[in-house]
Amino acid sequence: MTNPTLELLKQHRSIRKFTQQTISPDWINAIIEAGQAAATSSFIQACTVIQVTDEHKREQLAECAGNQAYVATAPIFLVFCADMQRHKLVCDMHQADMLSGFTEQFITATVDCGLFAQNCAIAAESLGLGVVYIGGIRNQIARVSELLGLPELVYPVFGMCIGYPDQDPETKPRLPLSVVLKQDVYDDSTDADSIREYDLRVREYYRSRTGGTKEMSWSEQISGMLVKEARPHMLDFLHSKGFLKR
Amino acid sequence: MTNPTLELLKQHRSIRKFTQQTISPDWINAIIEAGQAAATSSFIQACTVIQVTDEHKREQLAECAGNQAYVATAPIFLVFCADMQRHKLVCDMHQADMLSGFTEQFITATVDCGLFAQNCAIAAESLGLGVVYIGGIRNQIARVSELLGLPELVYPVFGMCIGYPDQDPETKPRLPLSVVLKQDVYDDSTDADSIREYDLRVREYYRSRTGGTKEMSWSEQISGMLVKEARPHMLDFLHSKGFLKR
Repeated sequence: MTNPTLELLKQHRSIRKFTQQTISPDWINAIIEAGQAAATSSFIQACTVIQVTDEHKREQLAECAGNQAYVATAPIFLVFCADMQRHKLVCDMHQADMLSGFTEQFITATVDCGLFAQNCAIAAESLGLGVVYIGGIRNQIARVSELLGLPELVYPVFGMCIGYPDQDPETKPRLPLSVVLKQDVYDDSTDADSIREYDLRVREYYRSRTGGTKEMSWSEQISGMLVKEARPHMLDFLHSKGFLKR
Repeated sequence: MTNPTLELLKQHRSIRKFTQQTISPDWINAIIEAGQAAATSSFIQACTVIQVTDEHKREQLAECAGNQAYVATAPIFLVFCADMQRHKLVCDMHQADMLSGFTEQFITATVDCGLFAQNCAIAAESLGLGVVYIGGIRNQIARVSELLGLPELVYPVFGMCIGYPDQDPETKPRLPLSVVLKQDVYDDSTDADSIREYDLRVREYYRSRTGGTKEMSWSEQISGMLVKEARPHMLDFLHSKGFLKR
């Protein structure tokens, strides 16, 4: 059982090389409107997108993201921000004393951005474009925030490059269904075995894609990453923006 | 400029009333596989879905979500969990000392769930099904967590009801594009005016939908909500699960 939308979803792979073909502003608007159509928690509509066209800013953002050159050169670069400044504005309109800083609000605003952005990604892909999410902007999140003039109660969750693909990578194999879909209760008793089997597939994927120069299983990749600190500046930065205070 | 996928995305509205028609397990698998195909931060694949079919659990989850009856009665109910327990498992496989509790990790795992779930929502809608996200399970997140046997480093982000629609609500008007899409810098100088205009449209939407019994603008709704505490138990609960510790 399948249909064109399911096919589209299953064909996703990140695109990191784009042709120079430009994209019309109408298309950007259609992509953002598709993002807005996603569900939004209690109608908060907490996602704000900053489209960055200024070349100098794009270069600095590429640097912030760990020198990912396509952040500077992709036809379109968007930054998805979790935004509760907008809510502060409407509370002020009504002389309402907004209670902010709750972890729950951080979750809803962040999830809102995720749903919004994923709709944008699918919209773009449905138009024949390719996309890649750029979590790397959180490497230097304070600098990104300053570059974009983000006020209190706004934080940049991730970026996204969009353009016509100039590469055609394979889709990356995902975890076995039994690992990610469970019935009634969290039972991971067979996960280790399933992951060992999956590891072989991931290793083969990298081997065939790199002509043998990279061979790495999923569990090796993940465990190698998780022995390091993960952007330890994040909590202080978010506190400074008024998030996660209680 | 449009296409069937863009049309599908723009037609989204939450469905809270379903026919009794059952949905084949093949469809559920296809929906979850579509979810897995979404981008995942550094390949972490941090989303685990618990499908709840046990009637007694469904009733309790409905209660947790503030007595949303469709949580008990919808043909399908899924709980999307941000899961780093799986990463602990693979770190243990490799005798790697996992560093957990970083706020950054909380963001990536939560965003992973958002992208995954939104793909599921679109997949379901492409099959003619309707969906509604259930953030309400976070009302009693500790109880939900216990009901589903969630271990440390796993938290339930939201639920989702899926089924054949037995209602046909209108789509809800979204904020003007100028409010959510900005160029190069966060500039909200015209937002208040745009929101006032938008408020009229939202008021009209509620009026026509409720036959005049509810008339509420967006800014009234949001400001009314934000003077209250937002699930103040959340940070303690997440700490207890090993999240947001640093």
